Amino acid sequence: MVIGTSVPRVDAEAKAAGSALYVDDLAVAGMLHAAVVLPGVAHARLLGVDPSAALAVPGVAAVVTAKDVPGRNQVGVVDEDQPLLVEDTIRYTGDAVALVVAESAALAREAARSVAVRFEELPAVFDAVRAMEPGAPRVHEGDNAFLHYRVRKGDVARGFAEADIVVERTFRTHHEEHCYLEPLGAIAAPDGRGAVTVYGTMQCPFYVQKAVATVLGLPLASVRVVQTVTGGGFGGKEDVPSEVCACAAVAAWKTGRPVKLVYTREEDFYRSSKRHPMAVTFKLGATRDGTFTAAKVLIVGDAGAYSTLTPVVLFRATAHATGPYEIPNVEVDTHGVYTNSQTTGAFRGFGQPQTIFANESVVDEIAEALGIDPIEIRLRNCLDVGRRTATNQLLTESVGLRETLERARDASGWSALREKPGGDGRRRRGVGVASIYYGVSLGAKGMALDGSGAHVNVYRDGSVRIAVGGTEMGQGLLTVLSQIAAEALGIDVEAVHVELADTSVVPDSGPSVASRTTLMTGNAILDAITKLKGSMAAVASDLMGADVASVVFRDSRVIAGERSMTFRDLAQASWARNVNTAASGWYAAPPSSFDENGQGDAYAVYSYATHVAEVEVDTETGKVRVVRITAAHDVGKALNPTMLEGQIEGGVLQACGFALYERMLSEAGRILTPDLSTYVIPTAADAPEMRTVIVEHPYSRGPFGAKGIGETPAMPGAAAIANAVEHAVGLRFFELPITAELVQQSLTERKRS
Amino acid sequence: MVIGTSVPRVDAEAKAAGSALYVDDLAVAGMLHAAVVLPGVAHARLLGVDPSAALAVPGVAAVVTAKDVPGRNQVGVVDEDQPLLVEDTIRYTGDAVALVVAESAALAREAARSVAVRFEELPAVFDAVRAMEPGAPRVHEGDNAFLHYRVRKGDVARGFAEADIVVERTFRTHHEEHCYLEPLGAIAAPDGRGAVTVYGTMQCPFYVQKAVATVLGLPLASVRVVQTVTGGGFGGKEDVPSEVCACAAVAAWKTGRPVKLVYTREEDFYRSSKRHPMAVTFKLGATRDGTFTAAKVLIVGDAGAYSTLTPVVLFRATAHATGPYEIPNVEVDTHGVYTNSQTTGAFRGFGQPQTIFANESVVDEIAEALGIDPIEIRLRNCLDVGRRTATNQLLTESVGLRETLERARDASGWSALREKPGGDGRRRRGVGVASIYYGVSLGAKGMALDGSGAHVNVYRDGSVRIAVGGTEMGQGLLTVLSQIAAEALGIDVEAVHVELADTSVVPDSGPSVASRTTLMTGNAILDAITKLKGSMAAVASDLMGADVASVVFRDSRVIAGERSMTFRDLAQASWARNVNTAASGWYAAPPSSFDENGQGDAYAVYSYATHVAEVEVDTETGKVRVVRITAAHDVGKALNPTMLEGQIEGGVLQACGFALYERMLSEAGRILTPDLSTYVIPTAADAPEMRTVIVEHPYSRGPFGAKGIGETPAMPGAAAIANAVEHAVGLRFFELPITAELVQQSLTERKRS
Repeated sequence: MVIGTSVPRVDAEAKAAGSALYVDDLAVAGMLHAAVVLPGVAHARLLGVDPSAALAVPGVAAVVTAKDVPGRNQVGVVDEDQPLLVEDTIRYTGDAVALVVAESAALAREAARSVAVRFEELPAVFDAVRAMEPGAPRVHEGDNAFLHYRVRKGDVARGFAEADIVVERTFRTHHEEHCYLEPLGAIAAPDGRGAVTVYGTMQCPFYVQKAVATVLGLPLASVRVVQTVTGGGFGGKEDVPSEVCACAAVAAWKTGRPVKLVYTREEDFYRSSKRHPMAVTFKLGATRDGTFTAAKVLIVGDAGAYSTLTPVVLFRATAHATGPYEIPNVEVDTHGVYTNSQTTGAFRGFGQPQTIFANESVVDEIAEALGIDPIEIRLRNCLDVGRRTATNQLLTESVGLRETLERARDASGWSALREKPGGDGRRRRGVGVASIYYGVSLGAKGMALDGSGAHVNVYRDGSVRIAVGGTEMGQGLLTVLSQIAAEALGIDVEAVHVELADTSVVPDSGPSVASRTTLMTGNAILDAITKLKGSMAAVASDLMGADVASVVFRDSRVIAGERSMTFRDLAQASWARNVNTAASGWYAAPPSSFDENGQGDAYAVYSYATHVAEVEVDTETGKVRVVRITAAHDVGKALNPTMLEGQIEGGVLQACGFALYERMLSEAGRILTPDLSTYVIPTAADAPEMRTVIVEHPYSRGPFGAKGIGETPAMPGAAAIANAVEHAVGLRFFELPITAELVQQSLTERKRS
Repeated sequence: MVIGTSVPRVDAEAKAAGSALYVDDLAVAGMLHAAVVLPGVAHARLLGVDPSAALAVPGVAAVVTAKDVPGRNQVGVVDEDQPLLVEDTIRYTGDAVALVVAESAALAREAARSVAVRFEELPAVFDAVRAMEPGAPRVHEGDNAFLHYRVRKGDVARGFAEADIVVERTFRTHHEEHCYLEPLGAIAAPDGRGAVTVYGTMQCPFYVQKAVATVLGLPLASVRVVQTVTGGGFGGKEDVPSEVCACAAVAAWKTGRPVKLVYTREEDFYRSSKRHPMAVTFKLGATRDGTFTAAKVLIVGDAGAYSTLTPVVLFRATAHATGPYEIPNVEVDTHGVYTNSQTTGAFRGFGQPQTIFANESVVDEIAEALGIDPIEIRLRNCLDVGRRTATNQLLTESVGLRETLERARDASGWSALREKPGGDGRRRRGVGVASIYYGVSLGAKGMALDGSGAHVNVYRDGSVRIAVGGTEMGQGLLTVLSQIAAEALGIDVEAVHVELADTSVVPDSGPSVASRTTLMTGNAILDAITKLKGSMAAVASDLMGADVASVVFRDSRVIAGERSMTFRDLAQASWARNVNTAASGWYAAPPSSFDENGQGDAYAVYSYATHVAEVEVDTETGKVRVVRITAAHDVGKALNPTMLEGQIEGGVLQACGFALYERMLSEAGRILTPDLSTYVIPTAADAPEMRTVIVEHPYSRGPFGAKGIGETPAMPGAAAIANAVEHAVGLRFFELPITAELVQQSLTERKRS
């Protein structure tokens, strides 16, 4: 068995030794370097771009503007609202007015500063709620509120009437920056015969392929996108790399030479997407025994200057808005709103951490009001097999939420801590809980993207090379897929080499997001291997004189009754007989649905988690220290427990940052915290003790029962921490981050009042 | 119809514009450059290599010797007789004693000269016939004559007894150099996680993959080989690139950095393989009416210092040794012999042009003796459906030889020229003919290699990208395969992009040699497309409410009865439904056989050709000018007539060089003609007028009926020219090249006698 064992990451040594090749480690002969000209203004009519001073800098090859785009100047991933290079209107400070291409990156940046951008400033709006008001400056033609989703289940009026208690609160969250280690970057290299190859750090090579084909006016077959080793994504490399790669491609087309474009951290802050700031008004009703009767939610999500992934992020937020509970009456209204802020898009959790902060805070308030233990009230209402979600989806399998609640409770010592949280006079301790669910893969809003491919090649020495459409971005995909292939072929994981994605090999496999890649790509690999085993078993049966059906692949051998041969020998024999040992595999997600009232089977399957946070609040400084997080996750099946724990630990720490530290400050669109010395993320020193609990409720369609783990670890933490802070000091916060200053100020105010 | 039309080469513009990227145009970040240390002696015991002076040169990173090879120091492609780097014995002047790796190629070469090689010279042998004599210096342990093939059909003694005339002659041919435009070269780049990617100019990426895996001690899955634009091959890039790439790979492994190794023309002359010099003794018997009764052939082939491809080259020479005639009694004995000369291997025609020179000369001598027209005697004996080859193979289809003879005769104006060849007193004209046949693909000695794969990816905009295991080396493969795919999918050829070979995508597809690639890879593409059309037709039938069986792909549309949609729309619809539009295809050659008596179905199918050469001999200078070649070829089906003609014209000119100009002179292994100013190949000014005649006897298993064209154009020319020279001046030559000096000397001798 390889599945379920913690084989080492296949890329660990390369990353530890520094031999892993990131895009900035690569060079192509004759390569130029590009830099982006940023406008320095958040909203303006562009009057002109004067490249003459830049072109006069020795070593500058070209200044590229919108009119140099050979195809369509359009990179909107869902809506076509986003030019690659500004045509007439600057809509945020991250808009690209022009590109400067030069012999070195330093030269390109220097020259970029001398490009004269003439514009007429327009009034700007930076807050989504304000942007919905009449008379607010319009970011695009039409209303700023460009998107509205709704869920209507049951009758919320009746539900609230049946309730003994109703709580309604409004919560606000902030722009959160992904802070992947490796900034965005790409190299576009014309292949010499009308096609282009693009290398880059990315999650979604097929998005990039489409964007590059669009801006260059080429067929998709003429655009090859090759993912380079990707140093973190977290959603931030879902759609934005399309822009980076498209910029490099247009610059390459203009100059006829390969072009590299790699952002500095500051450029990355300006040009990359953020987590949607949301205003979430959450109203929940419950009867005296803690049974939820109705929930009503209003979500206003700040899309920033372009829609980018907002339609899908807010779909997810909408579908999951009321939390992992069976609630008979639900009403959700979600608005996506343009502002002149940085664009917002995918970020681990994909619109859910914001609503979870809201719903899990309100659940706690209700529990407290009713005198019910927070875990107990969640157990009473939690989703389970046979229960229905807010979209009225009947859950039929693989629902481990109840077990995550029970095991997180037990593993964290919840009951004792809840009663006696510890601490001293100055440092108060508290414990809080939050539960979540997460529809794995794309669901009803992404059905057309929800297939994935793989291509498996068994060589004659029995080694295996696999091409996939999913991407490794640090999460461990290459390792887990190697395990899946090794298990299916009954060989050692060392015999399997999984490659980074290349759009020329594998068909459009959709994006590597939404915790879908292990499930989708894993199943595609299994599909290919089923075909390969069929062909190879026929050879084995012939060689060993056994029935094909009796052939088993195990322990690097191929066994037929009492006879057996090595897998390597069978590979060699298959080769010698001209039997094809390459196969394409494919997996398509089962259909899902979401009607105009937000009713339907929104996702095929859900992952579940419960986190218990133990915090210590310094009542003098206001500083919140997260002492311990106990994280219980239902993942269907843990394919590699150590890596799974790594995923959980990383997500937990990210949630600590979201809850307590991270805040992108800006002034009229100028980012005041454009680097990692001013934008504060948790370090190892801030890491709490972590206890992970793996819960396995296998998913019948998952590879070896697995669902997904990518997103969920980052989701419950902020809510659990906020609930723990409330438990510690009796203060409920309605805005993130809960900084020391905010806590101190609130404590002071309470003392005064 | 795309098939049968002369669409422009898909890579024409890139090559004409200079944008095509050959390996020397590529660079990888951090790349070093290697140069080979040649021994300067043809046969010696290696006593030591002192790298110290080279290592003292600033910029030199390493000197690599045999002991640095991490895996097995072995690159023999058929027999394991060839170390990558010399261990104890230097066997020819092209052996690699060491590699110097430095920051630039110039530095590496400079430092290579200062590597001190200590050796003890051994007696050497440079002629194969002499090398077979007792007491000749031994190149390896064991006899120099390391290989013996035989054909025994019927009873030659009886056959010669039945003959009215018997002619026996011995013919000799020389080392011929491929003179591809682009010298050998490679880049090996460690991928940072224990695997390596090798880029290079090559015909056979799967050979390279195996060689690199062997020398590095890696599984095949850890070696990715990517063919770069390849500037000519002609067989010279069949096996030798394995050495070049393995050298680069070992140097990369030693230094931990990417390494480029590109040969100068002189290095290429020393290190690349040549056409086998052969001594062919050909004995043919015929009855008075010109019917051949028996043939006996002795072939001695000079393998050079290592066996390389000699076993397969001499197999082909053996199987075809008696020419394209039905002869009831045949005896062939072929010996492969080591010498201390340059290795010999694949060269367009693959061992046949040498034996053709012999058998077609003797056929003419018999015809002359019997007073039968040379074409007439060939027509009386030529292979045809229902006749049997020398290996006793019954031909059942696609035998166009008779038609090539008749049409070459008619198109060349043979009869008139034969009677009145023209010319004046000094310049005598003559006309000669030669016919050939060529077993397409690998036949009985290459069965294990005789499968080919393809991977076809239809994108949602209806464009198509195809990965293949066959290689484009200038012959036009990418274009022809694009046509095959376009025809099968009913779309424009512009919508198809075929990529250069990459071993990580397509399974081992064998070598791109033996005129097999259009046939094998074309069929693999058709196999994949059949699968794709099945899936897409199901979508079309659903969308258009028609029976799947009625769906037709034509004119960029998909038609079902009276309804139709664009192929592009169907691709988009298939994508939107998550239907997999990628598929792997495969084709395996039918079984072939060749028993210990050389009897069996040696090849699945044969191509045929007849060339008529018209020459003018200057009886004062001896210079032979080829006035016109009429070349009639049975190719099964001409997929792209203009490119086919290009293939024929190139081959014809190459044959002119083989016949009249080319000769690699050497002295104790030192090549006296190591460049294109001293090794004379024909130029455009030497090109005869060419008339090409395409004969189509479709092959039922070929893609749209096609067989192969790569080799045959280079095969009959030398024999036809020699026969024409005989016709012009009455002198028969038994050795190539028929240089002006040789002709002049022979004319003078005749005059004297």
